[in-house]
Amino acid sequence: DHVDEIIPEGHIAHYDLNKLHSTSDAAINKEKILILTPIQKFHQEYWENLLQLTYPRELIELGFIAPRTPTGDQALAALEAAVDKVQSDKKNQRFSKVTILRQDSVGFNKLTEKERHALEVQKERRASMALARNELLFSTIGPHTSWVLWLDADIIETPASLIQDMTAHDRAVLSANVFQRYYDEEKKQKAIRPYDFNNWQESDTGLELASKMKDDEIIVEGYAEIATYRPLMAYFHDPDNSVAEEMRLDGVGGGCTLVKAEVHRDGAMFPNFPFYHLIETEGFAKMAKRLNYEVFGLPNYLVYHIEEKNV
Amino acid sequence: DHVDEIIPEGHIAHYDLNKLHSTSDAAINKEKILILTPIQKFHQEYWENLLQLTYPRELIELGFIAPRTPTGDQALAALEAAVDKVQSDKKNQRFSKVTILRQDSVGFNKLTEKERHALEVQKERRASMALARNELLFSTIGPHTSWVLWLDADIIETPASLIQDMTAHDRAVLSANVFQRYYDEEKKQKAIRPYDFNNWQESDTGLELASKMKDDEIIVEGYAEIATYRPLMAYFHDPDNSVAEEMRLDGVGGGCTLVKAEVHRDGAMFPNFPFYHLIETEGFAKMAKRLNYEVFGLPNYLVYHIEEKNV
Ligand SMILES: Nc1nc2c(ncn2[C@@H]2O[C@H](COP(=O)(O)OP(=O)(O)O)[C@@H](O)[C@H]2O)c(=O)[nH]1
Ligand SMILES: Nc1nc2c(ncn2[C@@H]2O[C@H](COP(=O)(O)OP(=O)(O)O)[C@@H](O)[C@H]2O)c(=O)[nH]1
Ligand SMILES: [Mn+2]
Ligand SMILES: [Mn+2]
Repeated sequence: DHVDEIIPEGHIAHYDLNKLHSTSDAAINKEKILILTPIQKFHQEYWENLLQLTYPRELIELGFIAPRTPTGDQALAALEAAVDKVQSDKKNQRFSKVTILRQDSVGFNKLTEKERHALEVQKERRASMALARNELLFSTIGPHTSWVLWLDADIIETPASLIQDMTAHDRAVLSANVFQRYYDEEKKQKAIRPYDFNNWQESDTGLELASKMKDDEIIVEGYAEIATYRPLMAYFHDPDNSVAEEMRLDGVGGGCTLVKAEVHRDGAMFPNFPFYHLIETEGFAKMAKRLNYEVFGLPNYLVYHIEEKNV
Repeated sequence: DHVDEIIPEGHIAHYDLNKLHSTSDAAINKEKILILTPIQKFHQEYWENLLQLTYPRELIELGFIAPRTPTGDQALAALEAAVDKVQSDKKNQRFSKVTILRQDSVGFNKLTEKERHALEVQKERRASMALARNELLFSTIGPHTSWVLWLDADIIETPASLIQDMTAHDRAVLSANVFQRYYDEEKKQKAIRPYDFNNWQESDTGLELASKMKDDEIIVEGYAEIATYRPLMAYFHDPDNSVAEEMRLDGVGGGCTLVKAEVHRDGAMFPNFPFYHLIETEGFAKMAKRLNYEVFGLPNYLVYHIEEKNV
């Protein structure tokens, strides 16, 4: 059962959205996926990881948005060179479509990991990221899109079967667990550690904090200054357990999160204003839930964030 | 200063959203407008009114969404016939693109004006309309869209210069005043009366009502059962005053409402859940305001809703 898509001479396109599916057999059913990446820096490792994904490229559309800053323009130039190379190579190796946007809204300009993560700047930074994600989403999602994969530009290592693995869960919203590889100076060996603390379950303390907040205050997860005692997916990683294990979530990050396109099409976006005291990807998860969808995470399914040295 | 749009062989599209403008000189600046119409019944008068608009057709894209019901399918068939005719006619008379969608979400099935307007069914009906509007919006807005005009399928009479007139105001969100022509049995003559009460300014009573409501309760405007004493744009119509007169609004209807595409692209959608105790188009206006945009209406600029007899 497929989607009717007829775009004849007269530029008329017919789609029956009710026949557009997102199922656990995504590749077999030829379901189109849109990979969306807000990008401030171009990392060659991100690009190479993207190229090693085994989901059929003719079913993949890519969308990027870069800030209007010197760094953003630099990222765009590097990205465009990489994209041109793939898209002018063998026809059967090309992505179905690539959209590259330069941001309308003003980007956030503090660059180092330390600066980015200071609590005071979170509201401004996350609000600006929310606008970038919305601009990207609204500009690229189409009536043929079955899935949207949010994949940050600094996710540099995932299984090659990432899309098949995640779509197989058939969940409305599903987050992978974002870790980071580093060198443990004490043990003198390579190690891994949790990176993304935005994947969490709500806690009584979190709800109580929210209930006492002024309308325009927000909670951002992962800061000692705001102890929510929320169970964080990052800490549920258990290497002895199945990578397919799921856990229910209330907040998600944007590092590597798969969304059924109908969730966005029903209206779920990234609030840049406090929405139940949450913003951006965490606010998005809440909005998906208000739209009656369930949100899940994969504590044992790891993807890796780049480690930026001396920053 | 124009938008770079390059879609070469490799299906790469570049857009600088910061160079995409929506200005008071829309036609001269060749700004693209997307006219969006949720459609349950096809009215020939709607179509003829649309065809008499003088904004250049090569700058107009149309988007329709019909419910998955026998009535919806009937509307689709009639619409498709009408669209095919125009789009296979002279090339310079064609719209730039037409997208016709059949709804994914379940439509609302009570058809008569009386049934539709009963207070008890408003929450369910408006929530279902919100989903239809979001599906339509997310499926059709592109990185080239400067303006979105929400025009209901039963708006059958507007000035031919509707788009030029409304874009000239250069407002983020701007609603025309929706009236209805009827025959005044008492005075034995044709007359007009206000139709849409969703264009309003917030009132102290409205705010107080909201503050006492449970989280999931909503206010829908235009019902004696909920007296908000909100100033309604419908009653501000003054035929002796300029059609260009503006008034600030807090809630809008979807009958004939022009939106700068960046407002939607920043994330403004139609909540199907209570958002500050508002839903659908009224919730959209609130969301636009949360995104720091201003909302206006044109009390003296009239457009007309069909009068459905015996319903
Ligand atoms: N378009 C855009 N992308 C950004 C901006 N700031 C960061 N990014 C990208 O957004 C994603 C998340 O940002 P990042 O700073 O890595 O967040 P963190 O890993 O949570 O510290 C990454 O893909 C960045 O490259 C911005 O201002 N505009
Ligand atoms: N797609 C879709 N459109 C609908 C549905 N119900 C109504 N419409 C259309 O949505 C618009 C507003 O609905 P209408 O019933 O006229 O609202 P009213 O004028 O406020 O009573 C009109 O263009 C209708 O044709 C529905 O269930 N699905
Ligand atoms: Mn990052
Ligand atoms: Mn109507």
